Amino acid sequence: MPDQPSHMTPEEFRRHGHAAIDWIADYWASLDDLPVRAQVDPGDVRRLLPASAPDVGEPFDALLDDLDRVVVPGLTHWQHPRFFAYFPANSSPAAILGDLLSSGIGAQGMIWATSPAVTEVEQVVLDWFAEALGLPDAFRSDGAGGGVIQDTASTATFTALLAALHRASGGDVRRHGVGGAGWRVYGSTQAHSSLVKAAMMAGLGEDAVRTVAVDPATQAMDVDALRAAMTEDTAAGLRPVMVHVAAGTTSTGAMDDIAAVADVVRDRGVWLHVDAAWAGVAAVCPEHRSHLAGVEDADSFVTNPHKWLLTTFDCSTFWVRDRAALTGALSILPEYLRNAATESGEVVDYRDWHPQLGRRFRAIKLWAVLRTYGVEGLRAHVRSGVALAEHVADLVAADDRFEMVTEPSLSLVVFRLTAGDEQTMAAMEDVNASGEAYLSHTTVEGRAAIRLAVGSWRTTEADVDRTWRALQQAAGRVSS
Amino acid sequence: MPDQPSHMTPEEFRRHGHAAIDWIADYWASLDDLPVRAQVDPGDVRRLLPASAPDVGEPFDALLDDLDRVVVPGLTHWQHPRFFAYFPANSSPAAILGDLLSSGIGAQGMIWATSPAVTEVEQVVLDWFAEALGLPDAFRSDGAGGGVIQDTASTATFTALLAALHRASGGDVRRHGVGGAGWRVYGSTQAHSSLVKAAMMAGLGEDAVRTVAVDPATQAMDVDALRAAMTEDTAAGLRPVMVHVAAGTTSTGAMDDIAAVADVVRDRGVWLHVDAAWAGVAAVCPEHRSHLAGVEDADSFVTNPHKWLLTTFDCSTFWVRDRAALTGALSILPEYLRNAATESGEVVDYRDWHPQLGRRFRAIKLWAVLRTYGVEGLRAHVRSGVALAEHVADLVAADDRFEMVTEPSLSLVVFRLTAGDEQTMAAMEDVNASGEAYLSHTTVEGRAAIRLAVGSWRTTEADVDRTWRALQQAAGRVSS
Repeated sequence: MPDQPSHMTPEEFRRHGHAAIDWIADYWASLDDLPVRAQVDPGDVRRLLPASAPDVGEPFDALLDDLDRVVVPGLTHWQHPRFFAYFPANSSPAAILGDLLSSGIGAQGMIWATSPAVTEVEQVVLDWFAEALGLPDAFRSDGAGGGVIQDTASTATFTALLAALHRASGGDVRRHGVGGAGWRVYGSTQAHSSLVKAAMMAGLGEDAVRTVAVDPATQAMDVDALRAAMTEDTAAGLRPVMVHVAAGTTSTGAMDDIAAVADVVRDRGVWLHVDAAWAGVAAVCPEHRSHLAGVEDADSFVTNPHKWLLTTFDCSTFWVRDRAALTGALSILPEYLRNAATESGEVVDYRDWHPQLGRRFRAIKLWAVLRTYGVEGLRAHVRSGVALAEHVADLVAADDRFEMVTEPSLSLVVFRLTAGDEQTMAAMEDVNASGEAYLSHTTVEGRAAIRLAVGSWRTTEADVDRTWRALQQAAGRVSS
Repeated sequence: MPDQPSHMTPEEFRRHGHAAIDWIADYWASLDDLPVRAQVDPGDVRRLLPASAPDVGEPFDALLDDLDRVVVPGLTHWQHPRFFAYFPANSSPAAILGDLLSSGIGAQGMIWATSPAVTEVEQVVLDWFAEALGLPDAFRSDGAGGGVIQDTASTATFTALLAALHRASGGDVRRHGVGGAGWRVYGSTQAHSSLVKAAMMAGLGEDAVRTVAVDPATQAMDVDALRAAMTEDTAAGLRPVMVHVAAGTTSTGAMDDIAAVADVVRDRGVWLHVDAAWAGVAAVCPEHRSHLAGVEDADSFVTNPHKWLLTTFDCSTFWVRDRAALTGALSILPEYLRNAATESGEVVDYRDWHPQLGRRFRAIKLWAVLRTYGVEGLRAHVRSGVALAEHVADLVAADDRFEMVTEPSLSLVVFRLTAGDEQTMAAMEDVNASGEAYLSHTTVEGRAAIRLAVGSWRTTEADVDRTWRALQQAAGRVSS
């Protein structure tokens, strides 16, 4: 037999593992002093790395050294307490360790039989989480529905569309394709870009997405316009198949009215998908559930614990009312996966719930978050983010160089400089370039706006105040 | 301000983190004494868990206790030294720690600008790996092509199909959908099930996949049959768009002839996708590259370090010759992601290379594997697996109750009991049920066969011999 390579011994794994944990703790401790946004130009990171992989293995410590030397300067630090751009991507200690344990276990949960605990823990944790969010019982795994962890909300929206096409076509799409049937998908002008991407990937094309106007003040879908569009399309021989409802848009956190949309689609047999990627997790707080009113009529629902809710990426929780539509669209059973448990119908095979075949034990990290924080701990985290956003809104109101663009939505605040678009963008870029904080922008009714999304578990009131002072100084510079 | 929940302090994170590392080391040390296949019935794991999430947070240690109490008995242990089913899912120490560091960094690499090092390290590592595999320069990121880490080969095949449709339609599919154009996709009867799933998801339907016969002896695609099928389809007004070539089928490790297929598609403008999910990584050894002859004519290529090559799931490395076809099919640019780097054209935005928008820093784990093993270490690992498979083939040849079904393919051996299908399946089930080892089955030319895939980093010759003795005993029982 040829020699095996030298794998880490158990003792070496413990030593390097403890060093990796300590590296993370040290990295976090260093964040406050690091610029939030990377200060590198294209190619800067690449230039610091050799052209080829080494022939002979190097000590693991060399990798840690290069994280400090090469990687950290090239990072925009999403775990920084003054990261307010996009939406947060919380990677909490409990979730990280949960995911680490999943790597150590290294099981493949493609079907129940390949490692039963991977499937059953995920079902239980998704049932727990559905209850914690106040979602309808129809989404629980003990009925006809059920939950699954997808990688991202983009994939959830895509699979929802595939399920919708399967149901609407009675299975014809699976067999014969989408053809030229004139399928139409609806979402507001503020719907996430993944809706168009889903239509493209599903073979419908961008043209199949009919964009519905929003109320200029709230940025929420104009439901009358939706109804009119569907009526018009149906009369023209087109086939409405899914409506995408945004419970919290990316741009401003606008909340479409799920119940009103449900009234429109109820008698049309159209799939109702609720995309609450960012805002859905706020429903752990009973007082922050109103944006989900009507969800009991949804066919599918997605929210991302990997954004605001402390769970390391990737963890996008997705529920369907009728899992048969989903598995009907996606099931494939090659011979080598045939097994008694699947044929008994007593188990769920998650392979048929998403595009991928292989899947890791992602439920551990969400289980770790739910258990170590408890539902009360998660509520406290959400409330803290909402309170900090209200504080930002107060700061905006108190400085007449700034104005709110829309009402604050949970932990997202959208505002601008009264001086105009150019000054708004320049002030934001000034703060971002300084590294003091990191914000992102959007356009609302054609005008530039700054988005400040609170939600990192490290962010304190002092971080918000420090960011605000930086913005005030920038406003002074760009207006002078 | 409302109180924040109590997050783990840095000291607690270090303590629990060290405990999690130690739990993994202890779990691995326990594997040899555990049954490989889970010994539970449907619902057994679920019944051990409470009905709801706790209101108040629990200590992290409670999670570790429940891993031992609830999870481990419900696992089929993919990291077990006598796990020979499916293909290996190696989760090596270096990869696990690399992925842990990624969780700690918690960066989102959806575009270059959101954390430049995430993109540039991935580009460098994929260039390194392409070189280590002897892939053509056309796949390198410094030309028109490039590599990206996908979650699974299923996603790679799906995105290859989307790119193929984009190129063949001149962008029409992206805008108007696949319509009723009669697109056709080709793969052998042994092609991975993800090909049919890709066609279903892309809106073409199962009917669009034309299955090509294989040579009964080698199980490799009959290239003459492929040529005839494409000619026939073209004459019938159908539009061949992609050929899926399996460089190592799941069932028997059969190798389609890439060069011969390339000759067929060259003048037809059909996309050539090489699916070397399992076997591709063997090309780190120059003597195990012959199955990739002709890959220089491929449009795309995928292989999974998360199978044989020691890299924690998910890590599926995918290269394209012309990245413009891929990004043309998948790009979407919402306002909040507009930035100077993207508009300069100097950077790659990986968001446009896969279905998902968000992406974690997966390159660290592959970087850790390439660096700590070195290319020579990876070669030694592959050679060890191939040698053990040859040893299995010798054992089969030495016992006349068994016979080989196909020639061994790298580290995969496919054999059966001469007594017949029923005895073959019964012997395998006997071993699997005992927990002594874990094997999977397939059918080859209509007859049942046992697959024994070597490749775990923990497997020794003694593990193979012990498994063989169990199979011999089972053969004695089922034949008596």
